[in-house]
Amino acid sequence: MKGIKSKIYDIAKRRGVFWKSYEIYGGLGGFYDYGPIGSLMKKNILDLWIKNFVIRDGLLMIDSPAIGPEIMYRASGHEEKFTDYMVKCKSCGHVFRADEILKESIENPESLNREELWKAMKRNNIRCPDCGGELTKPEKFHLMFATRIGLGKDAFLRPETAQGIFVNFQNLYRLNREKLPMGIAQIGKAYRNEISPRQGLLRLREFNMAEIELFIDPEENPKFEEDTYLFLLTSDGKNMKIKASEAVKLEILDEYVSYYMVRIIKFLKEIGIDVERTRFRQHAKEELAHYSKETWDCEVLLSQGWIEIIGISKREDYDLKRHSEYSPYDLRAFRRYHEEKKLKIRKLRPKMEILGPRFKGMAMKIARKMESMEYEGGELIVEIEGEKYKIPEDGYDIVEEEIVMNGERFFPHVIEPSFGIDRILYAILEHSYYEREDSEYKVLKLNPKIAPVKVGVFPLMAKNSLDKVAKDILRNLRENGINSYYDESGSIGRRYARADEIGVPFCITTDYQTLNDNTVTIRDRDTTNQKRVKIEKLLKTLKNLINSEISFGDINEEKIS
Amino acid sequence: MKGIKSKIYDIAKRRGVFWKSYEIYGGLGGFYDYGPIGSLMKKNILDLWIKNFVIRDGLLMIDSPAIGPEIMYRASGHEEKFTDYMVKCKSCGHVFRADEILKESIENPESLNREELWKAMKRNNIRCPDCGGELTKPEKFHLMFATRIGLGKDAFLRPETAQGIFVNFQNLYRLNREKLPMGIAQIGKAYRNEISPRQGLLRLREFNMAEIELFIDPEENPKFEEDTYLFLLTSDGKNMKIKASEAVKLEILDEYVSYYMVRIIKFLKEIGIDVERTRFRQHAKEELAHYSKETWDCEVLLSQGWIEIIGISKREDYDLKRHSEYSPYDLRAFRRYHEEKKLKIRKLRPKMEILGPRFKGMAMKIARKMESMEYEGGELIVEIEGEKYKIPEDGYDIVEEEIVMNGERFFPHVIEPSFGIDRILYAILEHSYYEREDSEYKVLKLNPKIAPVKVGVFPLMAKNSLDKVAKDILRNLRENGINSYYDESGSIGRRYARADEIGVPFCITTDYQTLNDNTVTIRDRDTTNQKRVKIEKLLKTLKNLINSEISFGDINEEKIS
Repeated sequence: MKGIKSKIYDIAKRRGVFWKSYEIYGGLGGFYDYGPIGSLMKKNILDLWIKNFVIRDGLLMIDSPAIGPEIMYRASGHEEKFTDYMVKCKSCGHVFRADEILKESIENPESLNREELWKAMKRNNIRCPDCGGELTKPEKFHLMFATRIGLGKDAFLRPETAQGIFVNFQNLYRLNREKLPMGIAQIGKAYRNEISPRQGLLRLREFNMAEIELFIDPEENPKFEEDTYLFLLTSDGKNMKIKASEAVKLEILDEYVSYYMVRIIKFLKEIGIDVERTRFRQHAKEELAHYSKETWDCEVLLSQGWIEIIGISKREDYDLKRHSEYSPYDLRAFRRYHEEKKLKIRKLRPKMEILGPRFKGMAMKIARKMESMEYEGGELIVEIEGEKYKIPEDGYDIVEEEIVMNGERFFPHVIEPSFGIDRILYAILEHSYYEREDSEYKVLKLNPKIAPVKVGVFPLMAKNSLDKVAKDILRNLRENGINSYYDESGSIGRRYARADEIGVPFCITTDYQTLNDNTVTIRDRDTTNQKRVKIEKLLKTLKNLINSEISFGDINEEKIS
Repeated sequence: MKGIKSKIYDIAKRRGVFWKSYEIYGGLGGFYDYGPIGSLMKKNILDLWIKNFVIRDGLLMIDSPAIGPEIMYRASGHEEKFTDYMVKCKSCGHVFRADEILKESIENPESLNREELWKAMKRNNIRCPDCGGELTKPEKFHLMFATRIGLGKDAFLRPETAQGIFVNFQNLYRLNREKLPMGIAQIGKAYRNEISPRQGLLRLREFNMAEIELFIDPEENPKFEEDTYLFLLTSDGKNMKIKASEAVKLEILDEYVSYYMVRIIKFLKEIGIDVERTRFRQHAKEELAHYSKETWDCEVLLSQGWIEIIGISKREDYDLKRHSEYSPYDLRAFRRYHEEKKLKIRKLRPKMEILGPRFKGMAMKIARKMESMEYEGGELIVEIEGEKYKIPEDGYDIVEEEIVMNGERFFPHVIEPSFGIDRILYAILEHSYYEREDSEYKVLKLNPKIAPVKVGVFPLMAKNSLDKVAKDILRNLRENGINSYYDESGSIGRRYARADEIGVPFCITTDYQTLNDNTVTIRDRDTTNQKRVKIEKLLKTLKNLINSEISFGDINEEKIS
């Protein structure tokens, strides 16, 4: 639809879905507020996400802080690798991502290093997109927001909620009674200090995520029964519509990835995305994040083109291994053997009287690490937080032990479905938007479960106690948790139109007949049909409509007395 | 109850309610994770908060970013005044809040300035609480976390969600059709870089808030009908149990404050706080935050003493005035007169050809401000963002206008109920905790609406298809959005005990009778009574129990066949 983006942004601002933050102070790029409509719509999306992914599958949900210590992001690789290259215009001072300004001139600029970007810029004679000025050589720019805790401990705002899950692996694995697969979910804000965000709600510096880290034993092969058609675009350029089960058979997808694709499609349908306008696009090798072995983006067709709203990444054992290297803990799971094995191993007994004076504050960490190690002969080096410590020969005894192994420790692999909630919300708006044929009126065809306002209550006239009856109905709905509002201004037609524009699925009108027979009309947004219902049955009827337990057509209309 | 705090913290860690963040990296003071139990409990508290305060009263909820620009916090007064004094031990290096280490020696140390604190420390011979060492002179310490946006724009993490509401006053007032009172709600994280947080979940550097800013016309006097008994402790030391309506009559409380106290008491009851152990304590003058004219803390009696969980502050027009001074916008509301008034006023017509060259980048802001002013004679000074600009006489014309006034602009006053969600969650745990008389087993008597896990499903034995039937029940409950889990390990008694400890209100057991007559037992946590119910009626029965639509006693037990 032509101009749909500007129409959505117009409604969003005018009706309180979302708007640019801090407008009275000139705005702040990459920050948006959700207004009264948007904030509840976001809540409804997240509630359905929890129902679909957490409660239904028995996942464990956690809530870890957005601020995290520097060492965690050193371990995760973000401190080193979570960067973009930026260039600055020598004339107007505007800044740009180097790969962004190159993307129309060359393929995959995001895979280039600094010198390659600079060469490509010169070869293609790239100038400032805003003023045509000369650009600087690309500089590395860090995408995490930095802050300090207490008197000066370095910390970052999380660029993903995932690390808060990985560092808790031990706690969570114990809570899950040491069973895999184990799915951990987290919802929350994440932060990326984008160089120059210019895509509205689609590229925010502070954004809402919902993530799952599914920890699996890579030796186990699950079977899932649910199935659906998927649109796939593989990294070698093949486009296909295929059943998930079929894609697994052909080894295009593995079981877990296909399971989440199926679940995602069902979720998107429920929240009101047109799944005919979705596809899963596989990342090319050079496009992968530093922690990922394979990634599929769920993209949705919007007026801006195909936009990623969800990613499914195979992080494998990258994160747990890194945190095991950088912390004194061993973040492995345990796999039980079918039959016991007997083994002789050499264990280390650290001698604190030697290690203490030698390594001081690090001695305990070193000793703990030594106790968890098997001695393999030769010089003994212990690595903690990226530092290597050479242990003197008199710093430990070697004890030979015969052990009966009933299993082994291993690093679980991780499948990560990661949802961009702001983009999903925007996509719902575009896919829900239409204009009535016979008018300029705009409609958001929001699923009643997603609609932030469920019911509008209107008196035909604000007099003769029609308003009083309407207000009583309003109070009753609100006390029962149904988000409703009252409107007595303008013609009924105008009031319906205002309700349609923010996706209110049902409107109640009190009229003169109400005073005779205690019935009101319910008007259905999508068909504009109306039915008369007794006030005493209204709450029940509306609850059933909102939860999709009945459809509008199922309502038994009251006989007119 | 003795030792209840350590028992709660033990359950919290062991069962996944909450724990210290980043333990594998040695922890980070003032940061806690919510585990699978805590995260859903928090969600349930917030859902009931939205139902009670937002939907019921028709408030508008928004969601603004946690990162905000420096100028906003200059305007709000936080940059200047949101500080504590800290001292450092010269021996062990530990840091402390100066007022904290003085609070056992003098009254109201929080009201002292730097020199007074230093004198009081010397007079009372205060030394380091940890090692007895000598302490430094107090230094001002800023409590907001600082960061930078883009290439270096200063910003802070919000210390309260409120400012995101105030700067949006215009948008919201328009959305509310320019009507007062207007209540705006916001839920989200807030951040305070506490010097040395040592109180677990009660003093966090990153915490969860739910706030309401109620904008009112101070000339209007509302009447509310709801009423309840309150425990009040006034700033002059009077303790009383009194009806809210009575406290209004005696002018101890104003109408709006008393309204929110009543609503708060009803909310606390619903979420499981013992309201006999609550009180509202009025702040002494020297205790008030820089923006508040009057504050009442809702305190709850915990093992640590009386702890603030909610504050109600009368911020009056402080914030809207400040943002009107620091931004080019006028954040006033409009009050319609009963009768029109005619007035002659002198307006300013800025001359851009003079102002432009003189004030350059500021000229537009100055001109906009001038247009909104009435000329009062004499030298013309325009103030923007705290800077004063003297306007030359040839920079404007003065035009006399006769205007018909049908109303006037004024700054609304603000009543702010502000909820500390983490403290509320902890208070619920303490008030729910008990131990069964005849055993060491611990119980959290959580309201079913708050309980994160609603149902435990147990097969009497994990064989003879008892486990299969139990798993089918589990799947059905989960697909209907009821958070449930399956447990087949240990005796039924042990399984009930494990469920009690995390407050699971209902447990289902499949036994041999199940195979004959398709009934299962439902066991009620609080009475430990059991009833037999047909599997086909189970979902409906559990839904009604969870929503408190029926009580356990109301269940019609199935006849044993």
